[in-house]
Amino acid sequence: MAKARNLVQKIIAQHLVSGKMTPGAEIGLRIDQTLTQDATGTMAYLQFEAIGIPRVRTELSVSYVDHNTLQTGFRNPDDHRYLRTIAAKYGIVFSPPGTGICHQLHLENFAKPGKTLIGSDSHTPTAGGVGSLAMGAGGLSVALAMAGEPYMLPMPKVVRVRLVGQLVGWASAKDVILHLLGLLSVKGGVGKVMEFSGPGVATLTVPERATITNMGAELGATTSIFPSDAQTKKFLARMGRPEDFVALCADPRATYDEEVEIDLSALAPLAAAPHMPDRMVRIKDLDGMRVDQAAIGSCTNSSYTDLKATAEILRGKRIDPACDLLIAPGSKQVLKLLTAEGLLDVLLDAGARILECACGPCIGIGGSPVSKGVCARTFNRNFEGRSGTQDAQVYLVSPQTAANAALAGKFTDPATWGSAPVKAELPRRVPGIRQLFVFPPEEGRDVEILRGPNIVALERFSALPASLEGKIALKVGDNITTDHIMPAGAAIMALRSNIPAISRHVFEKVDPDFVSRIEALGGGFILGGENYGQGSSREHAALAPRHLGVKAVIVKSLARIHRANLVNFGILPLLLVNKDDYDTLAQGASLTIPVADIRPGKAVDIAVEGGAKVAVTNDLTTKELEIIQSGGLLNTVRLS
Amino acid sequence: MAKARNLVQKIIAQHLVSGKMTPGAEIGLRIDQTLTQDATGTMAYLQFEAIGIPRVRTELSVSYVDHNTLQTGFRNPDDHRYLRTIAAKYGIVFSPPGTGICHQLHLENFAKPGKTLIGSDSHTPTAGGVGSLAMGAGGLSVALAMAGEPYMLPMPKVVRVRLVGQLVGWASAKDVILHLLGLLSVKGGVGKVMEFSGPGVATLTVPERATITNMGAELGATTSIFPSDAQTKKFLARMGRPEDFVALCADPRATYDEEVEIDLSALAPLAAAPHMPDRMVRIKDLDGMRVDQAAIGSCTNSSYTDLKATAEILRGKRIDPACDLLIAPGSKQVLKLLTAEGLLDVLLDAGARILECACGPCIGIGGSPVSKGVCARTFNRNFEGRSGTQDAQVYLVSPQTAANAALAGKFTDPATWGSAPVKAELPRRVPGIRQLFVFPPEEGRDVEILRGPNIVALERFSALPASLEGKIALKVGDNITTDHIMPAGAAIMALRSNIPAISRHVFEKVDPDFVSRIEALGGGFILGGENYGQGSSREHAALAPRHLGVKAVIVKSLARIHRANLVNFGILPLLLVNKDDYDTLAQGASLTIPVADIRPGKAVDIAVEGGAKVAVTNDLTTKELEIIQSGGLLNTVRLS
Repeated sequence: MAKARNLVQKIIAQHLVSGKMTPGAEIGLRIDQTLTQDATGTMAYLQFEAIGIPRVRTELSVSYVDHNTLQTGFRNPDDHRYLRTIAAKYGIVFSPPGTGICHQLHLENFAKPGKTLIGSDSHTPTAGGVGSLAMGAGGLSVALAMAGEPYMLPMPKVVRVRLVGQLVGWASAKDVILHLLGLLSVKGGVGKVMEFSGPGVATLTVPERATITNMGAELGATTSIFPSDAQTKKFLARMGRPEDFVALCADPRATYDEEVEIDLSALAPLAAAPHMPDRMVRIKDLDGMRVDQAAIGSCTNSSYTDLKATAEILRGKRIDPACDLLIAPGSKQVLKLLTAEGLLDVLLDAGARILECACGPCIGIGGSPVSKGVCARTFNRNFEGRSGTQDAQVYLVSPQTAANAALAGKFTDPATWGSAPVKAELPRRVPGIRQLFVFPPEEGRDVEILRGPNIVALERFSALPASLEGKIALKVGDNITTDHIMPAGAAIMALRSNIPAISRHVFEKVDPDFVSRIEALGGGFILGGENYGQGSSREHAALAPRHLGVKAVIVKSLARIHRANLVNFGILPLLLVNKDDYDTLAQGASLTIPVADIRPGKAVDIAVEGGAKVAVTNDLTTKELEIIQSGGLLNTVRLS
Repeated sequence: MAKARNLVQKIIAQHLVSGKMTPGAEIGLRIDQTLTQDATGTMAYLQFEAIGIPRVRTELSVSYVDHNTLQTGFRNPDDHRYLRTIAAKYGIVFSPPGTGICHQLHLENFAKPGKTLIGSDSHTPTAGGVGSLAMGAGGLSVALAMAGEPYMLPMPKVVRVRLVGQLVGWASAKDVILHLLGLLSVKGGVGKVMEFSGPGVATLTVPERATITNMGAELGATTSIFPSDAQTKKFLARMGRPEDFVALCADPRATYDEEVEIDLSALAPLAAAPHMPDRMVRIKDLDGMRVDQAAIGSCTNSSYTDLKATAEILRGKRIDPACDLLIAPGSKQVLKLLTAEGLLDVLLDAGARILECACGPCIGIGGSPVSKGVCARTFNRNFEGRSGTQDAQVYLVSPQTAANAALAGKFTDPATWGSAPVKAELPRRVPGIRQLFVFPPEEGRDVEILRGPNIVALERFSALPASLEGKIALKVGDNITTDHIMPAGAAIMALRSNIPAISRHVFEKVDPDFVSRIEALGGGFILGGENYGQGSSREHAALAPRHLGVKAVIVKSLARIHRANLVNFGILPLLLVNKDDYDTLAQGASLTIPVADIRPGKAVDIAVEGGAKVAVTNDLTTKELEIIQSGGLLNTVRLS
């Protein structure tokens, strides 16, 4: 008899190409599906082109345009045209701007239980809501997966998140994940998959589950997943694809590496306070705080059921004129459902602004708050400045909380909200939007790839020397996000296919002099604290610093996706053996790193000017070390 | 018996405060209504604040936010908040971002036959579609009108545009105005009002008329106007305000200064070719030209009837995936009508992108085309680069033409389009959106005006002394434009509500040291050549130098609009009597200007350091000289 397995182990076992399923050991997984979005996608496809195969080798690859759809200036529409033509050439489904948010669209149209999915977006775990093992990855990993290469990752620990009871009153799926974030912190999921189980699971619909798996990304988790059950079957049937259903759950006696229990019935509306998604507070404790902007949407909370709940709260009422209410439906399907049921009218009559079906304000592409503005946003991240307004105070909340805040112009105690609307369910007949996707032709040979002047071919980084000398060009503290390293926002994101141009913005919000300094130094190192590189998966946070000559980061600890990106683009990720050494190292100090002496998992001494030594180690595999030393993964793949 | 009058003369006579109705003579008009939009509105309201009266003195003043609703960064939402709070304080109706485009909203909700309206937007003549005498004006003129001051303008010539026949097939209202532009050119309307009459008028609905009067602005006309008749009555009734109807037309034997005739039945679909609205071409002559982007919206063509026509063309079809189709409904009322009739679904199913109800792409705020992109846009201007993409080729067309181009991905001969849909009419029950406007409280004393750090109250310029001493802070050559004086561009334009900040950029492209030099000097004079201040009408080219202490410009000759702005903001425009003196005066020379001795049109001597004298004269009226000596127009109004 086979060993009892949990759901994660089952899917991994079915896709295992290399390695052993021992937590921490490197495994290679066959990838069934990939997705990209525009902000990371142009780079992923430039990389896929560099690999040089004629057609993707996945079951399904989809290219979504959802992050920047504003098209201010030629760069952004040129990117979209590049993505459209390259999709046709290489056999990728293309989702045009305005069709919707990648994760919402993928959940509605393509995600399948038991399949592996990697996406060049950290919220790819959304598809875990239907039992897909769905992981965020760097664009290069996605390019390799499209080329049929396995996806390499450390075998995660599996955490059983046991749900009991059921949501009552104003508590929502968002509050489940906010509660979990408060419990475990933004580092609590690193190296782990959250597998939801227990009697509470059956009480949650797929859209609710997807909200939870989506924002599991903020735990730093590899992914989050729900079993595929009657709720999944119903969802897929209503989405018009009952044939995609397979039942899937853990074996009865499966074991887990860790376990957490959440009593759904004990939850009340929560918020993540500025400026971190795990700064959990109760809404009732915010009672009376002015709210300048409420925003409902993003891949976390833009489903039909979220917006129906919103509409039921706003029905027949008018929002406070001093509060701006932005609503961006997650997909045109959601918008069509709202229209069909008269709910769009309800939202308009209440004074809501209806934005295009896209990510937009969640990533600071429009919808910035007023100076010092307090926001109630249903999004997933509230990092300082991410909204586009540096001194804004962003609270992450449920749609129910955001709608109530918009009506009152302030946070109020949920006890004063009256009865919660009945939980929304998808109607039996959901209108399809399949014709809005552009499916690739059978054969791409004759397709011309159209590029604009802002789409610049990748440079080839040189191999590292045996010994690296340089200065600490920047010293930063704990929890540096990829937003700190490579800011987002419309103007900067428009440069993502142009590394020389986007590199001018590296660390600009942390230290406006960083770029000129490291250029004057001719390269150098970054010294960081704990959890360096958390947040968005953007590989530009590695690629652009590497372009500027950053060849090593020396930190207390690293976020998983950023670590992989550093490897992929040839930056040494070094870990301080003694974390107190962080305090002894100053910005500007000269270091000598003995690159040729570095071995996987072994400590080595860095020489510091003045004769001191600091021990650093690494968690690199032999292969990863080779990749870094050769100047990055693209060099090794092109050479192979 | 009174003399027979045309419609324009009738309305002017009813509002005449000063002057004679002789073409070219200055007249003063009582203004019933004003409107502003956000891009020009912040400065208009700063000026209104500076006037210092407690409440607007018009029948109705409305502040619309429609130009920039993207809110990328704090400045834009801060502007919106400032506009909202100042509206409440001073008794102005506020239309929040996303409610719609000012001219569409004003037509639907507020415009009245026989009323005078000025707006700080050149397309204010849209309201001429219901028989309002509606004119675009500078922000200061609107501020003064809100303060109850008359609007001063030269009495226009009145051109009778006689319409005969009726539109057939695919010809639309847009083709009427494109035809007229081809006939008269972009200078053909200067100093004139276009008054539409003849048997063809009755065949045109109000939304069609408004398309025509709107784009009459491109003729350079003072305004355009239709009579108020049965069509107007029907429109106002369906808009829920039958009480606003009055019948209004020219007297039977009225005379006109000029006359043009258009046979509506002879028109076919037209376009204005790049890069000027009068470069008229027939669509059939563009047959086969690739179209990368179709865009339907703007104050010219965003009505319900425009979008219903669009939907009927797209019904059951899919646009060419290589062509982006952007649709921005003109108002939430339009969007609600589309929703109610299932037309939004039709547009979505065809692959259209639905943008927020705003101007957006028409003014290059989002929606830019791809590099070298060919566009079919229903907008009103196609100046080079206005789309945000410098090398784009923009064709101005009707919604019918744009929709057909989107389907085919190219322009095609209208003969191949099949039968045109039946002309759309507004339904009998049009849903109101009146609750979406923020009406001001009865009393504004307690309203706090909220400013962001980028919104700075206008300073009060002091009166000029009897004698001005100072140095020539800058000597420039001939044909200096207002772009030389006050550069444009997104970064600088974001500072238009912040004179101290925008002043840092005065003359920066001519002499980067100018600002620091004039600050060190504590003010001074500009010495210029011929045609000083040509180009854009921006007031900041006078306001910002005055902030820096420029109190006189001494030039060979002056451009007309800049001269008016210099007067308005208290800078002496002096003309060299002997143009050769330009060569004898050096940058840095100390001058003494005997301000108290200056008389209209009289020469006076300026003392130059070292004992020389230079004669200067002026073309100022007594009133203008008083304005300058008192520190600018705002001071004289405040003192009255």
